[in-house]
Amino acid sequence: MRIAVDALGGDNAPGEIVAGTLSAARRLPQDEFVLVGERGRIEAAAGAEVPDNVSFRDSGGAVGMEEEPAAALRARPDSSVAVAARMVRAGETEALFSAGNTGATVAAALLSVGRLKSCRRPAIATVLPFPSPVLLLDAGATISCRAQDLVNFAILGSVFSKSYFRLDGPARVGLINVGEEPSKGTDLTKEAYKLMQETGAIRFVGNVEGRDVGSGIADVLVTDGFTGNVVLKTAEGVAKAILQMVRSAMTGNVMSKAAAAVLRPRLVGVRDQVDPENYGGSFLLGVRGSVVIGHGNSEARGVENALLDISRTGAGLSDALEDALASSQADPQAAQAGAP
Amino acid sequence: MRIAVDALGGDNAPGEIVAGTLSAARRLPQDEFVLVGERGRIEAAAGAEVPDNVSFRDSGGAVGMEEEPAAALRARPDSSVAVAARMVRAGETEALFSAGNTGATVAAALLSVGRLKSCRRPAIATVLPFPSPVLLLDAGATISCRAQDLVNFAILGSVFSKSYFRLDGPARVGLINVGEEPSKGTDLTKEAYKLMQETGAIRFVGNVEGRDVGSGIADVLVTDGFTGNVVLKTAEGVAKAILQMVRSAMTGNVMSKAAAAVLRPRLVGVRDQVDPENYGGSFLLGVRGSVVIGHGNSEARGVENALLDISRTGAGLSDALEDALASSQADPQAAQAGAP
Repeated sequence: MRIAVDALGGDNAPGEIVAGTLSAARRLPQDEFVLVGERGRIEAAAGAEVPDNVSFRDSGGAVGMEEEPAAALRARPDSSVAVAARMVRAGETEALFSAGNTGATVAAALLSVGRLKSCRRPAIATVLPFPSPVLLLDAGATISCRAQDLVNFAILGSVFSKSYFRLDGPARVGLINVGEEPSKGTDLTKEAYKLMQETGAIRFVGNVEGRDVGSGIADVLVTDGFTGNVVLKTAEGVAKAILQMVRSAMTGNVMSKAAAAVLRPRLVGVRDQVDPENYGGSFLLGVRGSVVIGHGNSEARGVENALLDISRTGAGLSDALEDALASSQADPQAAQAGAP
Repeated sequence: MRIAVDALGGDNAPGEIVAGTLSAARRLPQDEFVLVGERGRIEAAAGAEVPDNVSFRDSGGAVGMEEEPAAALRARPDSSVAVAARMVRAGETEALFSAGNTGATVAAALLSVGRLKSCRRPAIATVLPFPSPVLLLDAGATISCRAQDLVNFAILGSVFSKSYFRLDGPARVGLINVGEEPSKGTDLTKEAYKLMQETGAIRFVGNVEGRDVGSGIADVLVTDGFTGNVVLKTAEGVAKAILQMVRSAMTGNVMSKAAAAVLRPRLVGVRDQVDPENYGGSFLLGVRGSVVIGHGNSEARGVENALLDISRTGAGLSDALEDALASSQADPQAAQAGAP
């Protein structure tokens, strides 16, 4: 697989982005990686020991984390993320990774890479890892959705999670809502509930409340980009805060410090399970190719994990997603997405 | 203060509700408590030792946790929550507490107790206790909001939190959103941002992302009832899950068990800070009187804490809220809510 990496995107670019890419390239000798960015800077960051399957592509600067995405892309069509997106469109690579401005990556993908047929809007699919991993979408690509968008997200999430989580059967899809009954929620959730129950394209398990996010009740949780973004960030923020509280509780007198030392290795496991860096990036589903968004504060390990995920998911991803969307529209009672 | 308690509402009614009320009555001899419910059952639950400031009021059965609120209230106007709400309307009590069906409590309050002037819709205000306590509203009373509703919630939350958290200055109010910039979010959040920035009635600190829920960046977080409910339940669910993961990590071999025993008393503090039972109920703001909603699974301690909160907040709450709403409308540049 050939992957374009926006080497200038993210808080720790280009150093950590380049380092993570070199690590991934060493572990994946069959894949090819193109680092996109101001050539002098990214070659300097890469140093002398560059694996054969890594190349460089010159571009302008990055879109800043705080810039308004559409305006920035219009003003600077040679920005690193725009150049990387055009490589996917031109068929030079099958995938694009950026840890930069999320809105800019989404906009560049829509502009240059293009949407799948019959997918009006894309969704950011993110793994919420604790306690039981679940794929949440949309985590923020489409802030205001129609009910049919949510159904499309459900189909995209089903196909993706079946492969990503290596599920035996069809993915269980839940709709995030304020109660379990079909009558609960907004006009949007009520209509989406009805459509999801009617389509044969997903295995719909009904409404899922906030308290069951990550309880293992579903493999995929669908919601609009506003709610999904708030849920994801709340969950990450609370998890971090609770671990911080646990850590503080463990310091104190000599006895508790000694006890904490015994337990530390075990608690590291919990911290790792909660740490977003251990999960690759978020896949932008609904566009052609594999477009993956890293955390803005990604370090080399996070970049490497995201690139491993892209390689593992493979170049056939967007074709599989397009087929599932097409067959769900051709026959609403079609076999469940991703079913054999 | 006189408080009507729906003795039949909640998973552990009437036993835990009655027990919590008796405890609160002993600690608050100057207040009066009326237990509302099927007389035989609630008198039996109270036993022989009933403080002088506790009385009983006969009613029909409870509205079940799974019943459709409006239909249930229409069908059974003598249900315990309906009778308790009518006591507030009649001026027999200044407050109502119920740990029963939340929708039924909201509906009974709107139907019998009535709304404050110039408050189209009410909001459930809940303290999200970790790591830094913040008042979140709406947690689920008004699922679909207009921008002006959110501004009203901001004013209600400002006045309430200034008293509840004993703040020195005006409460800092944040709007839950997917980014900090005013241009972020849905049409609703964009319009609400503008209105909140224009009104002189609150101290608006801008948009707050999910990751900053509970970071101490604001005293009050405002959002629609759909988002608020999902955020609250997600935060509670994740906090519980992370503590469960920490607990599991601590069992294992003899060494880690011994170390865990040393640390347990310290971790109990973290658990208590996260436990919703340690925080009273949620105040339904925007209606007359004090209407407070307990967790469905409230035990005696949670009921007692809620009743202590009601007493501490006092009978003047809804007048103070009404005044703040009125002055914000009379003069949009009015002094900040709750400012001296």
